[in-house]
Amino acid sequence: MAGTRIDWPARIEQVLDRALTLPEAGSARLREAMRYSVLGGGKRLRPTLVYLAGTALGASAEALDDPAAAVELIHVYSLVHDDLPAMDDDDLRRGRPSCHRAFDEATAILAGDALQALAFELLAGRGSAVRPDPAEAQRRLAMSRLLAQGIGTAGMAGGQAIDLEAVGRRLDLAALQDMHRRKTGALIETSVLMGAAAAGVFEGPLHAALHEYASAIGLAFQIQDDILDVTGTTASIGKVAGADAAHDKPTYTSLMGLEGARAAAAAQHARALAALAPLGAAGAELARLADFVVGRAN
Amino acid sequence: MAGTRIDWPARIEQVLDRALTLPEAGSARLREAMRYSVLGGGKRLRPTLVYLAGTALGASAEALDDPAAAVELIHVYSLVHDDLPAMDDDDLRRGRPSCHRAFDEATAILAGDALQALAFELLAGRGSAVRPDPAEAQRRLAMSRLLAQGIGTAGMAGGQAIDLEAVGRRLDLAALQDMHRRKTGALIETSVLMGAAAAGVFEGPLHAALHEYASAIGLAFQIQDDILDVTGTTASIGKVAGADAAHDKPTYTSLMGLEGARAAAAAQHARALAALAPLGAAGAELARLADFVVGRAN
Repeated sequence: MAGTRIDWPARIEQVLDRALTLPEAGSARLREAMRYSVLGGGKRLRPTLVYLAGTALGASAEALDDPAAAVELIHVYSLVHDDLPAMDDDDLRRGRPSCHRAFDEATAILAGDALQALAFELLAGRGSAVRPDPAEAQRRLAMSRLLAQGIGTAGMAGGQAIDLEAVGRRLDLAALQDMHRRKTGALIETSVLMGAAAAGVFEGPLHAALHEYASAIGLAFQIQDDILDVTGTTASIGKVAGADAAHDKPTYTSLMGLEGARAAAAAQHARALAALAPLGAAGAELARLADFVVGRAN
Repeated sequence: MAGTRIDWPARIEQVLDRALTLPEAGSARLREAMRYSVLGGGKRLRPTLVYLAGTALGASAEALDDPAAAVELIHVYSLVHDDLPAMDDDDLRRGRPSCHRAFDEATAILAGDALQALAFELLAGRGSAVRPDPAEAQRRLAMSRLLAQGIGTAGMAGGQAIDLEAVGRRLDLAALQDMHRRKTGALIETSVLMGAAAAGVFEGPLHAALHEYASAIGLAFQIQDDILDVTGTTASIGKVAGADAAHDKPTYTSLMGLEGARAAAAAQHARALAALAPLGAAGAELARLADFVVGRAN
């Protein structure tokens, strides 16, 4: 897709806004809580990964809109639930009151639930023909399976459960990495692999290259998150700075020190770039995204 | 499928137990909360509907196992979340402590989230080949779309949001029916239509007949639920009797009186049986299920 110049951030916002136009929603309050949570900014890392991985392998932007929206809806649902009083009890998200503060707890629980359902509805082809074209059905079903596996007990939900159990305990580095690989890494990997699936790529060297890339930036992303929790301000990161230390949560910085964590992020960054070699020039935008992940200030 | 004698209740328990064997779960506590909530009994109405509707149209029991398990996992996730303190705040479910009482709130939120993901994972073909057979992919994708639509803002989650907003207000009968059609009826309809989809039936007179049947028993089920809340005991219904009145919730019995509600349930029962006429003898088990729905004491 060299030569195409698509404004991905603008496209993502448009696709999310369309996904959240819900004329049949029974409750305006529920719909507004979903729109408030999703359309209130965010880095859009995961949908960007879907678009960049997919177009690197030849998928059209149109074929990537549904999976791109789906991974962001899932990410936001996880934030909405993680912020609940019974979970991390965070009042601030993306520089604004978190969903249960802006609305109420029950609405936040339901909004998260409905965002998860909407993600799978998009992948199943909302509003499309009753029986989709067989090849498209295969691709969509494969994406649905990737997403479901990435966010269940083996992935995101399992990681959050480990995280909750770890508060006040001492995790070693292996346990910390396992927790983050599930909690954050799994959805990042899933985003890349869904882009590949939308391009019809399910195996082979390019698939392996993207998988390795995704694993590296997933780790780099989490290490950088822990660094920012120490070095950032509440204003710059849009959530309460120092929250991990305040909650006595194990982090890369608490285990490795700030400089150790920075070195680890740099190592994962290098690993991500090396993984892209088989893609040649088609991997350029993914390389720039890896630069962003470790260079970001929020 | 006349002549086959399958023990559906035993099959459902087995299929659910297998679905909840989660070797890769990161957290034993999360997995146990899911197993506790799902395997603790229940009428299994929705999976039974999947099996009976599907076999009435010629699907094999094997083709119905995944959708049958999926609808029950979704039903249980909705119970786990509805029981939370921020929602209906129920301590008792199926005669035992509700999930957040037996475990804790955070675990109950995550267990519900992970049950929803697992339902879609089963529909996408957990553990099956990367690229399923095209015809099977079409059927599975159609079932995934039905489920996602049935449980999102237009269906179950939207209905629960209306229900929360209705506490202490006066809903008229039309609004009460709209709320229940979404909150309970949508998943019951979805169960029947997923059985049809597993049999490759997406339209035509048999599809319309099953849709009408499902709509009638969905209504009958809810009316009977409201009747049991008034006439049952906590021991007989397995949850706190009189909870709706205590929460000042609008119900069929509060709007129509007990006798009016009984007449309405009987009318929906008759409508369900009439709808089955085009199925002939193949509808016999579905007819017996309709009898159970209005005759049940729990």
